[in-house]
This record gives sequence, structure tokens and C-alpha cells, in this order.
Amino acid sequence: MRERLLAAEKVVPIRWHDGSLYLLDQRQLPLKEHWQRFERSSDVATAIRDMLVRGAPAIGIAAAFAVVLAARARYAAGGDWRGALAADCQQLAEARPTAVNLFWALRRMAECLAAQSDDTALQALEQEALEIYTSDREANLVMAQLGAEVIERDNPHPQHIYTHCNAGALATGGFGTALGVVRAAHLAGLVERVFVNETRPWLQGSRLTAWELLQEGVPMRLNVDSAAAHVMREHEVRWVIVGADRIAENGDVANKIGTYQLAVTAMHHGAKLMVVAPSSSIDMDCECGDDIEIEERNPDELLSVAGQRITVDMPVFNPSFDITPADLIDVIVTEKGIVERPDEEKMQALMCRKRLH
Amino acid sequence: MRERLLAAEKVVPIRWHDGSLYLLDQRQLPLKEHWQRFERSSDVATAIRDMLVRGAPAIGIAAAFAVVLAARARYAAGGDWRGALAADCQQLAEARPTAVNLFWALRRMAECLAAQSDDTALQALEQEALEIYTSDREANLVMAQLGAEVIERDNPHPQHIYTHCNAGALATGGFGTALGVVRAAHLAGLVERVFVNETRPWLQGSRLTAWELLQEGVPMRLNVDSAAAHVMREHEVRWVIVGADRIAENGDVANKIGTYQLAVTAMHHGAKLMVVAPSSSIDMDCECGDDIEIEERNPDELLSVAGQRITVDMPVFNPSFDITPADLIDVIVTEKGIVERPDEEKMQALMCRKRLH
Repeated sequence: MRERLLAAEKVVPIRWHDGSLYLLDQRQLPLKEHWQRFERSSDVATAIRDMLVRGAPAIGIAAAFAVVLAARARYAAGGDWRGALAADCQQLAEARPTAVNLFWALRRMAECLAAQSDDTALQALEQEALEIYTSDREANLVMAQLGAEVIERDNPHPQHIYTHCNAGALATGGFGTALGVVRAAHLAGLVERVFVNETRPWLQGSRLTAWELLQEGVPMRLNVDSAAAHVMREHEVRWVIVGADRIAENGDVANKIGTYQLAVTAMHHGAKLMVVAPSSSIDMDCECGDDIEIEERNPDELLSVAGQRITVDMPVFNPSFDITPADLIDVIVTEKGIVERPDEEKMQALMCRKRLH
Repeated sequence: MRERLLAAEKVVPIRWHDGSLYLLDQRQLPLKEHWQRFERSSDVATAIRDMLVRGAPAIGIAAAFAVVLAARARYAAGGDWRGALAADCQQLAEARPTAVNLFWALRRMAECLAAQSDDTALQALEQEALEIYTSDREANLVMAQLGAEVIERDNPHPQHIYTHCNAGALATGGFGTALGVVRAAHLAGLVERVFVNETRPWLQGSRLTAWELLQEGVPMRLNVDSAAAHVMREHEVRWVIVGADRIAENGDVANKIGTYQLAVTAMHHGAKLMVVAPSSSIDMDCECGDDIEIEERNPDELLSVAGQRITVDMPVFNPSFDITPADLIDVIVTEKGIVERPDEEKMQALMCRKRLH
């Protein structure tokens, strides 16, 4: 399966080449495939904030490479370069508040730096960023297999799967989390069709997930987010499969706004909910979902579409994420293994494990 | 209350003046208030199909006036004008399939015509269309009061209300169905805030409902459709109030796609569901929701926004409506009275009543 997934890879959103970071501009996809080159950490922070790069794991990877860019510039400038670099890292940390992978990656980079002398620091930081990148890709390959096995154990026949937002290759270093499982399930003959929510306001579903699935020939169909219940009433949907921006110690999951509503809808219709995320998305410092800061984005995301104003000014509530309580989740899939019916005890046991390779 | 509602009226979407029909183009609202004049029935059929006019009651009223326009033209042309007129009515009937008010209005016009001689037909048809128009407005005033009384009996304090799509003045001859109740509740001091779903794909919520509420100073807040569960988890929402495009004999309700999902979400969070619709929306020839034809509209409604293409070609499921089963509905409000926990027996008893004035 690992080899078949590797062979099927068509989309990679992040490249590190000759000491520069290249990001595929996800705001322009799928109509334009535009790669942007980054030389400065502050520009990467802006790219994260403005969602040129998005998806919890991809944000973490981009931030790690941004630290490499920042370290190079600060070291060259001399003086208290470690202090200046810490400020750059703080700027990166403030780019978006909910996805914990961003803070996780920055902490790994800070720990790496702390262990190095000035002579070895730059090279070590670049190695660490590359390790974060490649280990994310490896984690996705492991999760894809684990998730597909869960689906097959549950029902070995082709079935309907539902997904929300984009937890695909574009959201990660490659292959994807939720879509990685869908890919592996498709290769194993377990997918009859994937129902894709368009995912307002940013339309990650219609622009990114649908595009990924179409490129690989996975049967899919797009609908508006509010049609999920109608679709589930008309078709037997066996699995709702989504990613996560942060998972609390008790198994509560922060993910794209609409995930919680989809979880409630799935429960009402007897569909199971699978959350797929690397252990870097698990935040054991958060006791439960209520501790997770939910980012509120610009009202203009609802008042304008594709750069065109569609309505008058008005009060808008535009949370980018919501919390799905653990008791609505059937299984969390990570590279360390799976957790069925998550709770604090099971999550703690999971985090003590080594990764499965 | 009736006088206060009349005094507060700010939006009317349909006018009949000097033998011409004028419709406010709802595709351009709220950024442009453009009135279009209609002289030909076929143009009104196109306007209904293309959603220049939308909302079940408004569609019925527009079709009734279209029959007046058609009759005038066919009568002037001579020959078998009644036969030619029947073909015009058939064209109107085929404009949209789900809202039963369209067929109801056309049947009323046909029955009126059948009872008239050629000499009196044109004047009688115009009178009948005006009667359909004014009685819809009157029905809305009655429903507004009845609905507000239900809310007050349940809880006499300011409360959170949630709505979907536009069942406002724009969807009717005036005042609105669901929004008529919200207006009356607001005038009675029962509304703390109205949460408005933007209502993809056509954005009736952000473009029409929000605009109506803002004009009248009703406190409101807009969010994406998939945020409903998150909003209900954060705020106590007491009532979800929506309109209907068709109500079956057993109380199942066809309404804008997303209504069913909102009903499931409301049940999960302990919010009550009120459906507000004139008896012309009740179709006693439909035993249950499964008998109601659900219109599927152009995939382009999801692939483009505001005339701009946002993604590549793909399979799309774009149902314009869904079915909310009667057992998720707390109360149906009509101009004939209210039905709590609707079923076939209660609906039959309601339809035997006279309207309340």
C-alpha cells in the first residue's frame, strides 16, 4: 500500500529547494497553479495568516522552514541574532491561533536551536525542518494504511464516504490526513463515492478536495454544506472522515467550521466519524475543547466572494473552526495508532507510544 | 399588532400597476434595487425559473398576474384563446417544480376563468389575481400574530431565533411568513437576536433576509450555514423559524436545502422548530414528503459565484430543497391556525377550518 500511495502522489504543496521555500498558492487553486518563492520569515507569516498555505500540518511545516530563513538572515546580521530570531518565531506563532501544529513545529525548532552552537545552528535548523517535513509525509502514509484498515474491518465492500474542508495533500507535506485514508481506501477498492462539502466560506471542498480527488480518479460529488443531512437521508453514508487542527487531551477535536454540525448529522443518520491527524495535532496541554482558542476571521469572507462584494455591511460571526466533542467521534487515527471512542485515558496511552513505521 | 406591522412595512417585491406586473429583481439585491416590468407571460415564466422572483408565495402571485397578461394577449389575438391560454399556464407550471403555491395559484386562475364568459373573463382574472395577492398579504399578517403568540406563550422574554433562507416580505406579497413572525416577535419585544444562515448556494440569507432585518432594525448576525451547530452550542437558541415550499398531508415540509439539517441540529440542541406558511403551501394530494418533487438546479450555482468561476468542472448535486419530516417539527403556523406536532389527522382538521381574520 505504501508503494501504491507513493506512486499515486500527484499533489505536493510545499517545496524546499536551494535554501528557498516554495508554496503553492492555495487561494488561487484550482484555476491557477501558482508557486510563490519565499526568502523572508515575515512573508511566510503573512502567507499563513492570509491562507496562501493552510491545513494544520502544512502550516507547521511552512513555519519550520520560515525559521530556517529567519535564522539565516539574523545570523548574517550578527549581534543578538538568537534574540532577534525569537521575535521572528513569535511573529510566526501569532499568524493563526487554532492549529497546534504551528506551535509544535516552532517549539521543535526552538529546542533544536537551543542545543546548537552558533557554528552548527543553521545547518541543524535546516535538517530539523526537513525532518518535520519528511516525517509528516511518513506519518500520513502510516495513517492512510491504518484508516483504510479500520474501514475494511468495518465493511469490506465499496461504500459512501463523506468529507469536509481539505485534509488532503494540500493540507500537509503530502498524501493528506483524512484524504490520505480516502486515497488508501480507494486503492483498496473500498470507496464507492466521496461526498464533498463545498466548505464555506473559503470553499476548500470545491476548490481543493474535489480537485485532488478528480486528479486521482476517485469518484466524487460536490454539494453545499447544508445538504449533508439530505445526502445522508438519501444515501447510506458509512464514514465521515475529516482532519483536525487541534485535538485536546480528552479527544475533543477542533476542526474546520461545520465539522461539529456534520458530526451531529452523522450521528442522526448512523454514519461513523473518523478523525485523521498526526500526533503533532494533539495538544495534551488542552484538557478539553473549551480550552482551544477558535480563530475568528474577517467578516469580508462572507460579504464578498471571489473578490466581489455580494451584500451590504452587517454583523457577521465568522469562526474558522468549531469543537466536536469526543463522544461524537468513533475513531481517531494517528501515526502512533488508532483510538476508538476517545477519552483522556486512551489519549494519554496513545501519546506514550512510539510511532508505527 | 396588525397596525404596527402595516406601519413597519418597508419591502414589497411585487407590484401590479396600470395592467403591468413589476417585479423587484431578487438576483441583484441588496446591492441594486432594480424593478423589471413584465408584459408577457412567457417572460414571467423565465423570471420564475431564473429566480428573479422567488419564494413560494411570491411565485404563486407572480404566476397569477402572468395569467392576466397571457389572457389579455390571447383574447386580443382571437381564435381559440382559452386553449392558447391553457398552454401559457402550462409553461408557467413548468417553471419550477417544488413550491406548490405556483400550481395552487394557476388552478385558482383556471377555475375563475372556467366560470366566466368571454366578456367578463379578463376583468374577473385580474380581480382574482389581485385577490390572491391581497389575501397572501393578509394571511401573513395573521400568521405573524399567531406565531408571535406561540413564542410568547413559550417564553415571554427576549430570546435567540435562528432562520434559514428568506421567508420574508421578498418571498411573499408582503411582510413574509417566517420573517413576518420574527417581525411581530420583535415588535412584541421577544427577540434578542436573529441568527441568519447565509444559505448557499443562492445566498438568500446574506442578500435578502439580512437586508430585510437590517432595514427594520432587528438585531441580527450572519454566519455560514455549517456554523449553525456551533452557534447553538454557544448560545441558547429557542426557536428555529423557517418557511415552506410545500407541506405534505402528514406535515412533512419541503423547504430550502439545509432546512432538514437545521432541524436535526435544532433537535440535538433543544431548540424548537416553527414552520410558517400559508395554507396555499399545503398540498393534501401529497401523502408525505417522499411524494414531493425536489428541484435540482444547475451545477454552475456551486462552480461559480457572482458570475465568476471558482473551480473546475466536476459532478455536482444541487438540490434546491430538502424534506424535513413532521416528527422534527414543533409547530406549523398557517393563516387558518397553528398545528402543534403535525400529523395527518391534525393537518386534515386544519384544512377544514376557515381562515382566521
